Amino acid sequence: MSAQTVDLPAVPATWKQRHLLDLESLSAEEIKLILDVAERFRPVAVGARHKLSLLSGTTVANLFFENSTRTRTSFSLAARRLGADTIDFSPSGSSLSKGETFIDTAKNIEAMGVDVVIVRHRTPGTPHLLSENIGCVVINAGDGPHEHPTQALLDMLTIRQQRGTIEGLTVALVGDIAHSRTARSNIWGLKKLGAHVILCGPSTLVSRQWEDEGVEVSYSLDEVLPRCDVVNLLRIQFERQLMRPFPSVREYATLYAMNRQRLERARDDILIMAPGPINRGVEITPDVADGPHSVILEQVSNGVAVRMAVLWLLAGQTSS
Amino acid sequence: MSAQTVDLPAVPATWKQRHLLDLESLSAEEIKLILDVAERFRPVAVGARHKLSLLSGTTVANLFFENSTRTRTSFSLAARRLGADTIDFSPSGSSLSKGETFIDTAKNIEAMGVDVVIVRHRTPGTPHLLSENIGCVVINAGDGPHEHPTQALLDMLTIRQQRGTIEGLTVALVGDIAHSRTARSNIWGLKKLGAHVILCGPSTLVSRQWEDEGVEVSYSLDEVLPRCDVVNLLRIQFERQLMRPFPSVREYATLYAMNRQRLERARDDILIMAPGPINRGVEITPDVADGPHSVILEQVSNGVAVRMAVLWLLAGQTSS
Amino acid sequence: MSAQTVDLPAVPATWKQRHLLDLESLSAEEIKLILDVAERFRPVAVGARHKLSLLSGTTVANLFFENSTRTRTSFSLAARRLGADTIDFSPSGSSLSKGETFIDTAKNIEAMGVDVVIVRHRTPGTPHLLSENIGCVVINAGDGPHEHPTQALLDMLTIRQQRGTIEGLTVALVGDIAHSRTARSNIWGLKKLGAHVILCGPSTLVSRQWEDEGVEVSYSLDEVLPRCDVVNLLRIQFERQLMRPFPSVREYATLYAMNRQRLERARDDILIMAPGPINRGVEITPDVADGPHSVILEQVSNGVAVRMAVLWLLAGQTSS
Repeated sequence: MSAQTVDLPAVPATWKQRHLLDLESLSAEEIKLILDVAERFRPVAVGARHKLSLLSGTTVANLFFENSTRTRTSFSLAARRLGADTIDFSPSGSSLSKGETFIDTAKNIEAMGVDVVIVRHRTPGTPHLLSENIGCVVINAGDGPHEHPTQALLDMLTIRQQRGTIEGLTVALVGDIAHSRTARSNIWGLKKLGAHVILCGPSTLVSRQWEDEGVEVSYSLDEVLPRCDVVNLLRIQFERQLMRPFPSVREYATLYAMNRQRLERARDDILIMAPGPINRGVEITPDVADGPHSVILEQVSNGVAVRMAVLWLLAGQTSS
Repeated sequence: MSAQTVDLPAVPATWKQRHLLDLESLSAEEIKLILDVAERFRPVAVGARHKLSLLSGTTVANLFFENSTRTRTSFSLAARRLGADTIDFSPSGSSLSKGETFIDTAKNIEAMGVDVVIVRHRTPGTPHLLSENIGCVVINAGDGPHEHPTQALLDMLTIRQQRGTIEGLTVALVGDIAHSRTARSNIWGLKKLGAHVILCGPSTLVSRQWEDEGVEVSYSLDEVLPRCDVVNLLRIQFERQLMRPFPSVREYATLYAMNRQRLERARDDILIMAPGPINRGVEITPDVADGPHSVILEQVSNGVAVRMAVLWLLAGQTSS
Repeated sequence: MSAQTVDLPAVPATWKQRHLLDLESLSAEEIKLILDVAERFRPVAVGARHKLSLLSGTTVANLFFENSTRTRTSFSLAARRLGADTIDFSPSGSSLSKGETFIDTAKNIEAMGVDVVIVRHRTPGTPHLLSENIGCVVINAGDGPHEHPTQALLDMLTIRQQRGTIEGLTVALVGDIAHSRTARSNIWGLKKLGAHVILCGPSTLVSRQWEDEGVEVSYSLDEVLPRCDVVNLLRIQFERQLMRPFPSVREYATLYAMNRQRLERARDDILIMAPGPINRGVEITPDVADGPHSVILEQVSNGVAVRMAVLWLLAGQTSS
């Protein structure tokens, strides 16, 4: 195990976060610090064939109550590339099926010497609840439709890498805003960093109430597209919808999919993003997904870097 | 990976165990040695943010044929904190579903250079059978209703930490004795270390035959409670019972649950234990589970320490 | 983590392979090089209680779309004993169930900094397709009935260890040739190394077309057995067969199972092999499987060694 060093920025004394529960409660400075640290970790994150020992001896537990191979793998790789040990604590087959409460399960995990719990749960507020009941560092990997802070952080890191800054940019979040924790985290994060945020999608999936938060709401992608620096195409989460929110997938694609025709009417330097997994032909056509404006795979790589940054800032400071 | 040292006790030449199959066949001295070693490992077990390299290069396989995230995780963390590699060999999706025999599966695992097999199986005697057929160290993580030696060891370590000794104490095992491998391992272990053991529960779940082994049997918790130093509340294993052994959960709780009223009639220094996962409101009320007499989470932490001790004593001696 | 050294052979400049997709396209020299390297790794592979750091910092992903605890474990242990990190990326619960394409899943894995992808898939050509679409090293762990190159390599390593050479030997592959990727990889590999290959089984499971490749085809094991140096008993893959290819398991066993009677008519030094998992009483009787001619467990141990060799040759060269 090579323990090559990374030139990490000094962590300001104002950094007091114990957990990462949401972006709504972080300051612009705290978000920028995470992005700065992630930038330094990126070479290790994307496979420079060495790992660090900054979190050696630390145990990180994945406590995922919803399917997510991708996010769980990203967190696991981030943890291990910092030298931490990882365990997956899945609900099926666990004590929860024997009648144990969620908090008791978490307290047991803590009692086994786990330092960090990464939690994904369909109930909003679960990470917050956990953070009040256990002494571990808690990181929200998605709590129902509430927040998914590391996804928004990796989106912002990708924008900043491509444009140099986020301030003053116009970013459209397109699609299923109502069910999207990614949208919510992006809204808070982007606004704090000075972006103009547009929410765009069918009226059944985008609430006008967001205008009270200083966010623009539009039901026409074609109308707002020429003004956008970034378009982030959210996945239609068929599995979360109780009712069909639009007449057909075809109609949705006609109005909101990013395709070549639409791309031609956009800015020359527009960034096309998608949190993935993408439904090719629904939110985005294959030529655009694989085209020069797409930074979808950069987002994935930045996901590992951002998670390394969060883990190190929350769990690596005392042990390093 | 920091390889800080732990001050381990000298292992007496009389320690000849190759496997940990049960507590019935261990001597009091052997049990005490395991507890002594576990005591030294406890700081690492509960998350001192460093790991050891005593079992570096050793491979530990979890061969679990019954669901148990908790015990499997505890063994995995114990192994990794000693520097070992771990693999999970689960039955679903394995060669067993293609017609291979259990022993052939085990021999294959051995042939892949696995040093230690942790086995849980619903058939009593499976660990013993394994130990006769493969060259690996075999550790019993629960074989049907027979034994679960590391659970009893962690229970005893917890009692000894709290009381300084086990000799002369009165320990009640309450509840589902008939289906409990934890009860059986505790009975053998506690008696060897000089405790007076009381088995307490509905007559359908506690056999009078245990009296032949020098164990007290009672059907009334209220009657024996004032004499107890420790009460260990076994989980009602609804999933193992073919017939309902008592009229209702409510009636069971009325007679055998540890609640505040009952606690007031117990000794001031009584220890409340439960092997977990606990059914709050069945064996134990929440106020007692979370109260000052409860050492339930200490038991969980001691589980990692005890498993480190067993792994090191069985597999770490030659390589250290 | 001890990083003891292994005396590795010099890799000739002619070694240009980036992936291991099949044996059909490898040269005899390339196959021999893999076997030579595997020979050096064997002490570490079978549990010498130390691990190497030749692949430290490398991430190896198992991307298994068919059940295989055994092969996946063998690859994982091989990777970890070289110091690599491993992750399992299983299809259930992954983004594939959310509508993502297979190639997008693979590109995501690559973007997370994974260096090597081990892939098993029921569709022939999947590893080849992957290798054209991602930058990772791709290793075929079985693609439908096409090839399973590491299985044939471990079979060949076992023969060479026992006989000193493969050239000039007569090797019979017995049983379900039609559904067997193991058979196909063995055919290509053995022929390249100079063996005479006999395919033997019911006419419904062995095609005469193989004679065009210079391979002998026989429907009678008893007829060819006296000439064989090695008999490799393929598993009847009940789970892959759409129709029953023979009247009964009993009739199959009567004609093709290796049993004591048959063994008595074979050469004194015959080697009995089986890729496992074995169906005792179908392809092989227990006394033969466990008898002195059987090298079945040596095959399993060699599997770890061969996979270490392949991983090191494909991924370890640049980083070591």
